[in-house]
Amino acid sequence: MAVYTDINEGDLGAFLADYDVGELQSYRGIAEGVENSNFLVHTTAGQFILTLYEKRVNRDDLPFFLGLMQHLATRGISCPLPVERRDGAILGELCGRPAAMVTFLEGIWLRRPQPVHCAEVGRGLAEMHLAGEGFALTRGNSLTLADWRPLWTKAKDHADAIDPDLVGETETLLDRLEAEWPRNLPQGVIHADLFPDNVFFLGDALSGFIDFYFACNDAFAYDVAVCLNAWCFERDHAFNLTKARAMLKAYNAVRPLAPAEAEALPILSAGAALRFMLTRLYDWVMTPEGSLVVKKDPLEYLAKMRFHMGVKSAREYGL
Amino acid sequence: MAVYTDINEGDLGAFLADYDVGELQSYRGIAEGVENSNFLVHTTAGQFILTLYEKRVNRDDLPFFLGLMQHLATRGISCPLPVERRDGAILGELCGRPAAMVTFLEGIWLRRPQPVHCAEVGRGLAEMHLAGEGFALTRGNSLTLADWRPLWTKAKDHADAIDPDLVGETETLLDRLEAEWPRNLPQGVIHADLFPDNVFFLGDALSGFIDFYFACNDAFAYDVAVCLNAWCFERDHAFNLTKARAMLKAYNAVRPLAPAEAEALPILSAGAALRFMLTRLYDWVMTPEGSLVVKKDPLEYLAKMRFHMGVKSAREYGL
Repeated sequence: MAVYTDINEGDLGAFLADYDVGELQSYRGIAEGVENSNFLVHTTAGQFILTLYEKRVNRDDLPFFLGLMQHLATRGISCPLPVERRDGAILGELCGRPAAMVTFLEGIWLRRPQPVHCAEVGRGLAEMHLAGEGFALTRGNSLTLADWRPLWTKAKDHADAIDPDLVGETETLLDRLEAEWPRNLPQGVIHADLFPDNVFFLGDALSGFIDFYFACNDAFAYDVAVCLNAWCFERDHAFNLTKARAMLKAYNAVRPLAPAEAEALPILSAGAALRFMLTRLYDWVMTPEGSLVVKKDPLEYLAKMRFHMGVKSAREYGL
Repeated sequence: MAVYTDINEGDLGAFLADYDVGELQSYRGIAEGVENSNFLVHTTAGQFILTLYEKRVNRDDLPFFLGLMQHLATRGISCPLPVERRDGAILGELCGRPAAMVTFLEGIWLRRPQPVHCAEVGRGLAEMHLAGEGFALTRGNSLTLADWRPLWTKAKDHADAIDPDLVGETETLLDRLEAEWPRNLPQGVIHADLFPDNVFFLGDALSGFIDFYFACNDAFAYDVAVCLNAWCFERDHAFNLTKARAMLKAYNAVRPLAPAEAEALPILSAGAALRFMLTRLYDWVMTPEGSLVVKKDPLEYLAKMRFHMGVKSAREYGL
């Protein structure tokens, strides 16, 4: 939940004067997103989401993120469309921060997704992977294998206090990932953070994707592995095979996973679990008390790491 | 900023089934309000604000607050209108909390109000005071003179750490208020918390009032005193006579202040400043670190207490 920067009416009016969006009717800070400040803006032309990019987002990456949304939207993927200013730019500045307006997407993110929704996500993810083809910009994954050990080094001294097994299991998995990480899988633009709060539904139908601020070029199958982690475990950390099967089947129907991709799913999923454990651990130990950043439990992802380390074949994911 | 309770789609769907508001399109937590959890809800029938009343609100007071909004709205005051359920009730339950839906009000709250806006507030406040007449329910002010000393007793041990003069000046003012508080001023329904974030504007015109959760029966002139504190000081705590004059003139044009009310303004204003200093101080010392409640500086209101204690006549407010 996040509004790190409040906006006053004078600054907002000056910002909106660069857009062809009519008269301002209202704006409200939205309690969503943990990286940026988001406002729902009503004007006589419609509804928009205004985002102020806070310091955790690298300004140089914004053309990639915003350009990708434009690229995907023009290829039929439902996602927020950046609104062009009168001068054609899609990035402005507000309160000393880079800022952009995107179209408002109707839909609800599901706190309790069911298998039918996991199938929708699988299908939609595959469609997004195909639609990303031809996007002119590239961006490396800044939270991939090479980044995990440095992140671990910064946070590991605090890990013991969270769980006595965390250090040993993380070191074991890191060693294994560094030895076995697959390098030659099909690559393209991936979302890399497709958690339930980034996927909207109307009824049981997927209505759109949001929050492309971790998108990058990487293995498509890694994106699938992120989704297995994000959608197919229950609150008690039990793996829900029905959900995974529905997701993978729907993905395969649009973009069939190559044998090498299927084979790599267990190690990719273990890596994805480690990645989210690490960033959660880092935030857990580094975030000052009283901060607006909502801390998420790293141990949820320790449980997922354990599960994936025990998986011998993608058949165990229902593939 | 506040979403204390998240809602899942199943619970929200069941809640909305009691209303005739069409199909749910989206809902987002809003980062506004410090007492309750607020969501902007879109349905095929329109936009609504859904409020879950958290523990700081007394459930028994809700019929007064919601009924008052209905009463005022039917008398031409622009404020959120509670939406009736199919069974005619305006209060439901969601996530174990009392919950209500009200119509969405367009408009912006001004971070930097100017004299023209203070005049609008003065006019609107007087209109609200007149429109409140005939409202069937009553509610005592739960943060008035009799409540201040008990609140002070709970928080005073921490006051020295905030400012060495705070204890002495508060005791002096409390003694004076208890001796001189006016008892026979014209009474009616007052808003009692009409700060800038509770008043919406479209352009320079007032478009509505929100947040009636401190409304009560008390002296009209006390409501004026709250507004003088909330609207007529600058960030450096300087009193802006131009704003006060504009506000009082516009109020007087709709509901002329009686001589006794005008005469009482300095002591009412000092009392109002003490009331907000006290609740801020209490929150400051009682709120645990890491809470979502945004703490506001009590010393801003110590400065206002000092100002009003030095005022000899309402003429100094521009009346």
